[in-house]
Amino acid sequence: MSKVTPLSGFPEMLPAQRVVEREVIDSLSRSFELHGYANIETRVVEPIDRLAKGGEIDKEIYVLRRLSAEEGEDAGLGLHFDLTVPFARYVLEHAGHLEFPFRRYQIQPAWRGERPQEGRYRQFTQADVDIVGRDELPFHHDVEVVRVMVEALDRLPVPPLTFSVNNRKLIQGFYRGLGVPDVIAAIRTIDKLDKLPAEVVAEQLVEQAGATPEQARACLELATIRGGDASFVEQVRALGVTDDLLEEGLTELAAVLDGCAGVVNDHVRVEANLRIARGLDYYTGTVLEVFMEGYEHLKSVGGGGRYDALASDGRTTYPGVGVSFGVSRTLVPLLADGVLAGSRSVPSAVLVAVVDEESRATSEAVAQALRARGIPAEVSAGAQKFGRQIRNAERRGIPFVWFPPSAHGQGDGTHQVKDIRSGDQVVAEPGSWTPPADDLHPRVVTTLSTQKEHQQ
Amino acid sequence: MSKVTPLSGFPEMLPAQRVVEREVIDSLSRSFELHGYANIETRVVEPIDRLAKGGEIDKEIYVLRRLSAEEGEDAGLGLHFDLTVPFARYVLEHAGHLEFPFRRYQIQPAWRGERPQEGRYRQFTQADVDIVGRDELPFHHDVEVVRVMVEALDRLPVPPLTFSVNNRKLIQGFYRGLGVPDVIAAIRTIDKLDKLPAEVVAEQLVEQAGATPEQARACLELATIRGGDASFVEQVRALGVTDDLLEEGLTELAAVLDGCAGVVNDHVRVEANLRIARGLDYYTGTVLEVFMEGYEHLKSVGGGGRYDALASDGRTTYPGVGVSFGVSRTLVPLLADGVLAGSRSVPSAVLVAVVDEESRATSEAVAQALRARGIPAEVSAGAQKFGRQIRNAERRGIPFVWFPPSAHGQGDGTHQVKDIRSGDQVVAEPGSWTPPADDLHPRVVTTLSTQKEHQQ
Repeated sequence: MSKVTPLSGFPEMLPAQRVVEREVIDSLSRSFELHGYANIETRVVEPIDRLAKGGEIDKEIYVLRRLSAEEGEDAGLGLHFDLTVPFARYVLEHAGHLEFPFRRYQIQPAWRGERPQEGRYRQFTQADVDIVGRDELPFHHDVEVVRVMVEALDRLPVPPLTFSVNNRKLIQGFYRGLGVPDVIAAIRTIDKLDKLPAEVVAEQLVEQAGATPEQARACLELATIRGGDASFVEQVRALGVTDDLLEEGLTELAAVLDGCAGVVNDHVRVEANLRIARGLDYYTGTVLEVFMEGYEHLKSVGGGGRYDALASDGRTTYPGVGVSFGVSRTLVPLLADGVLAGSRSVPSAVLVAVVDEESRATSEAVAQALRARGIPAEVSAGAQKFGRQIRNAERRGIPFVWFPPSAHGQGDGTHQVKDIRSGDQVVAEPGSWTPPADDLHPRVVTTLSTQKEHQQ
Repeated sequence: MSKVTPLSGFPEMLPAQRVVEREVIDSLSRSFELHGYANIETRVVEPIDRLAKGGEIDKEIYVLRRLSAEEGEDAGLGLHFDLTVPFARYVLEHAGHLEFPFRRYQIQPAWRGERPQEGRYRQFTQADVDIVGRDELPFHHDVEVVRVMVEALDRLPVPPLTFSVNNRKLIQGFYRGLGVPDVIAAIRTIDKLDKLPAEVVAEQLVEQAGATPEQARACLELATIRGGDASFVEQVRALGVTDDLLEEGLTELAAVLDGCAGVVNDHVRVEANLRIARGLDYYTGTVLEVFMEGYEHLKSVGGGGRYDALASDGRTTYPGVGVSFGVSRTLVPLLADGVLAGSRSVPSAVLVAVVDEESRATSEAVAQALRARGIPAEVSAGAQKFGRQIRNAERRGIPFVWFPPSAHGQGDGTHQVKDIRSGDQVVAEPGSWTPPADDLHPRVVTTLSTQKEHQQ
């Protein structure tokens, strides 16, 4: 058997780190459900022809083959590389059993065979919220879904986040009004602004989108506009381009900012950022990316937008709007940096000491009495000297050690419980003693100073 | 693109069904944590040489290959087919960061390319609890882990369950004391008793384990012994075989029954069943399978036991004992049969009606006030006539519809909320009205009559 070595790109969490991931997932779930979003999980495999549509992602798809299959015979299945493709398929497959507009959230891993780097993994967990309509989906759902994700992320113990929002109609209308010959090529080119210098992007706009140097300069100027309120509208108008689609995009983008005004704060901001283009073809209106302060090198930790044809079966079209949050992309670096940690590695709030193996049942009964009242408890594995049992609890991060009355008439016949951090030891009853609420379950601890207040 | 058709062996749940699965997973998690078991998740892939060890399962392993990889070049990785192999590897890989005995639970999917049938799927979710020691793991943990799973399953809304427990030392000692030449072959043969008639098994014991017809008869006689208390010990002794290992096995099995006596009831029983052998080589002591009343055709819905070498790195050996519960194997049939269902398909307890698009913000504010007090609420997608908005709520299973004051001076200026099941409509305030606790979240509903009382 091969030696055990970590697999690059497949991060795995220790129990205390998993405490953080679960709390984040639980918090997101609670937020999404408060807004009426139902949870689903899809199978992890899709037919390869559904996954591979000639996009850039194709080469990263993991294909499945049974170990015993003949050479060249595969299952025709691959692991999904995001949660949008399987959701679109789920909507088509189960449409007869769903009510529209259908609000769903989905928190599952996805897989890409890409080169691993910080924030980019071969297996990674995403949290997606989407709302999908049948035939039509009013614009107000764009505002809704952005606000839902703003509220959900605001509750997480992470550094400050910025939702950078734009609108494809705004960009397309501006380019069209400007007279750029190939609008789609121009959008794909402007999307490279986070990787290439502005001069290079300008050259490519000329070469690849057929723009004049003046048009290229106007495109770049549009991309510099950003702001947290509707003043961006006037800045765009000052560029002197008029177009119906541009107007529609301006109105929609202003409405997203306005709709989020009541939920933003210092921890989560929403801004118009006219540089955001999202190269993917299927976006048709609102587009957005989410950035995390101090972690800009991860690029976006979330993103999404409106797609007027999330799915279609030829007769019916299902428009959708959604936002995806990269759980692994965010948490793996924050855990590695020690910004987030779990307060302990075991659920147990109490270790019940064992006096001797003959009286193990007495210790078990204490633990059962605590559990019956919702207090996680474990019984010491061995009947070593109490000092050693206490050290065992300490190593596991368990805050309390319980001492049952000695079976041999030692002690005064009382139950006692010791807070091993302070050393305080008190007489206690298994049927009534309760630890402080903060000690009951492992918690997320963070070095983010403002966050602590925020969470309260 | 191919037409959307369900993939055989990859069951997928509708939102209301997923309510049931999540509640089951949450309930299991709470139970395991009360006993001090920490949650982990492992990556879903393992090196193929770790997965494929020449066992019967090998041919069912799904191997991964990047779509763009050269012919014959694969990633050397396969999807795990259970949670034991990845857990053993996790223990070896992270041993330096774990405290032993290490209690963990893991609830994740696994994959097998086998022929799908009821209860057997190509993707299926399991819930495993294990406790693993370094170098040694006292026997009392066998009792502990069985009891933990008994308590956890007792809280689930499923038909009555039986834990059928045996002990490999008991069987091996009995066969050895009896003088059967090939004890291991005899165990594998006796394991077929649920598939083959007793006469055929007897013949195979003679042919494959070298037993005499008398020995074969004694083996079969041992396998008929079962019972809920320690009386099985006398029944075994009456067969007249003496052996040290047999005695050890009898003592351990009796201790498991005794240790579970305080937690069993009509819903979950624990019995000695000396037919249970579990063919797998790695079990060394306690072995068990779990059966569900009325669903005996699924075979076991859970199983597990003691393995003295769960993992080993050559220098250190990690003994373990654990029990696995088949979440998909249990739930998919119960959901299909309508024994279990979710009470509604959306989290929303309230649909806030919209008077007209101009006053949508008023309806949003009502929803936000409800959410701020933990009441899941959604706002109507359109400003249709109230009758139609009520029917929309009805179709989604939302129990309450909220009517904000009309923006046009119609009505009396009050907020009102209607229970659309009874038709009762009352004046209410968004900042104080609360639905009955039973309506707050989707619930699991079951046709199991006794179960309802049980859950309370």
